[in-house]
Amino acid sequence: MAQIGLAVHGGAGTIPAQTLRPEVADALHEGLRAALAAGLLVLKAGGPALDAVCAAVMVLEDDSQFNSAHGAVFTAAGRMEMDAALMEGHGRRAGAVAGICGPRNPILAARAVMEASGNVLLIGQAAEEFARAEGLVFMDEAYFSTPSRRAALALELARRASGAPDTRSDADRHGTVGAVARDQAGHLAAGTSTGGLTAKRPGRVGDTPVFGAGTFAEDASCAVSATGTGEVFIRFTAASEIAARVKYAGQSLEQAAFEVIAELASEGGDGGLIAIGAHGPAVMPFNCAGMYRGCIGADGSLLTAIHNEPFRVRKP
Amino acid sequence: MAQIGLAVHGGAGTIPAQTLRPEVADALHEGLRAALAAGLLVLKAGGPALDAVCAAVMVLEDDSQFNSAHGAVFTAAGRMEMDAALMEGHGRRAGAVAGICGPRNPILAARAVMEASGNVLLIGQAAEEFARAEGLVFMDEAYFSTPSRRAALALELARRASGAPDTRSDADRHGTVGAVARDQAGHLAAGTSTGGLTAKRPGRVGDTPVFGAGTFAEDASCAVSATGTGEVFIRFTAASEIAARVKYAGQSLEQAAFEVIAELASEGGDGGLIAIGAHGPAVMPFNCAGMYRGCIGADGSLLTAIHNEPFRVRKP
Repeated sequence: MAQIGLAVHGGAGTIPAQTLRPEVADALHEGLRAALAAGLLVLKAGGPALDAVCAAVMVLEDDSQFNSAHGAVFTAAGRMEMDAALMEGHGRRAGAVAGICGPRNPILAARAVMEASGNVLLIGQAAEEFARAEGLVFMDEAYFSTPSRRAALALELARRASGAPDTRSDADRHGTVGAVARDQAGHLAAGTSTGGLTAKRPGRVGDTPVFGAGTFAEDASCAVSATGTGEVFIRFTAASEIAARVKYAGQSLEQAAFEVIAELASEGGDGGLIAIGAHGPAVMPFNCAGMYRGCIGADGSLLTAIHNEPFRVRKP
Repeated sequence: MAQIGLAVHGGAGTIPAQTLRPEVADALHEGLRAALAAGLLVLKAGGPALDAVCAAVMVLEDDSQFNSAHGAVFTAAGRMEMDAALMEGHGRRAGAVAGICGPRNPILAARAVMEASGNVLLIGQAAEEFARAEGLVFMDEAYFSTPSRRAALALELARRASGAPDTRSDADRHGTVGAVARDQAGHLAAGTSTGGLTAKRPGRVGDTPVFGAGTFAEDASCAVSATGTGEVFIRFTAASEIAARVKYAGQSLEQAAFEVIAELASEGGDGGLIAIGAHGPAVMPFNCAGMYRGCIGADGSLLTAIHNEPFRVRKP
């Protein structure tokens, strides 16, 4: 029986350490722990990595602190366009949606694509209609929208109109949620869900639903969920590149993941990722000020962190 | 100065050899040669691989024998939804569009995304609006539509309604066009354009605009354009996998490409691809009855083939 493993992220693009109020930090850690706990329940009961990933991502989607589903950011046109993807390392089933607004949990729309469409990637209104036909719970736009995301959009549009330089923190630019897991059977899975970039161009799709870029799972190498400047993660096929170095270049997952994230930085790709392999703990490299992240310890502890700092440890 | 190289494909999914009339075969070979000639002109003049790929793909898009742009297949809803992607191996710039109908040459829409959007992937109506704002030539739906594609849709919808088994040849199912090139500076590029699958689910996107699946370029390894059962090419990150074996497993491009295509077959992935590396000729493996394909010989000959057969050779 394999040792179970689980990691989650709530996006690279964190509030800077010096301006993060303690009660806000506490709430972020609590949100990450809730996601870990949901995934851990599945894994401890012997459930599949795929279910653990879905459970963890759904908690993060429902939490408006993170940029996905409830709390998704707005496009430049003032709408919400969400992307989500899910992949299984065993058999490599995969499903993704891009440019949708409607399903309460976009990760479940990705799962429906994987399980019921015969396809892998569905986009736009047709993807919404498919999700509705599959019986997914839908919400009005008002559910997803939050005052802080609306304020961030207004601020950014005003900045663009004024021609002032972009001084936003990473937290105001982007964000994503994701999870990776290894179950008792040793199978891996990865899932990612995002609202994209604040004030993004309508129709823009980032790395989340691009398998091999922002989401990837293969039992022989690793499962990956990424967050950051999606365009660079796509161009350098970030997740596939890590898997390739593990499979063919004899690198450890840790070495491959940290090196790829460092290389992306030199190409202008800010961000990070969480990854888990066939053995050992999850790795969580990032090349920016911070990444909302968490994983489980060997004793079942819930470990969470935001910036480059020691984990907060919640004993089981 | 590097030896130039160029290959094109007009889709795996060919008319079966026994039912292909000689005059139809002649026209298909002529279409492939026209695309090769357009790309070759650019490369001989010292132009970049990217321009050669665009030139070749545009010829194939304009040719209604192949499933992209003029001659694109219909979705189950009777519309056309086209995908295209372009990638440069040097610097790894990339651009793609998915689910569009409007620009006469979708490959130019992908190029505009690469060069002018600041993004990598744009989808749907917003992508069309972007292409229009960039000044691309647009055509009415009537331009793209052909009687034979409409007949193929009607036949397939009738079959589905009757519950009869799917006995279509690959040619009636799918198709795609693409090109890969190596220029005098040794840089690589790849481009792909498709109408997708006949009677596909609206909103369905295949491997074409997924970098690392259906389209990929990296000077250090190879440039790839794929065609076939896109879902399987995505799940197994076909192009990235070939690049990884070349970079890290010491395989030749030929070995890697042929092995990956054979492995995809065992997962239900019918199709093929064209690929070119830093040195040597292009490779063009496929695991189905045929693939419309062509490449240039060392002496500048235009070599074309459809099924598993010797090339027709047009001397320079």
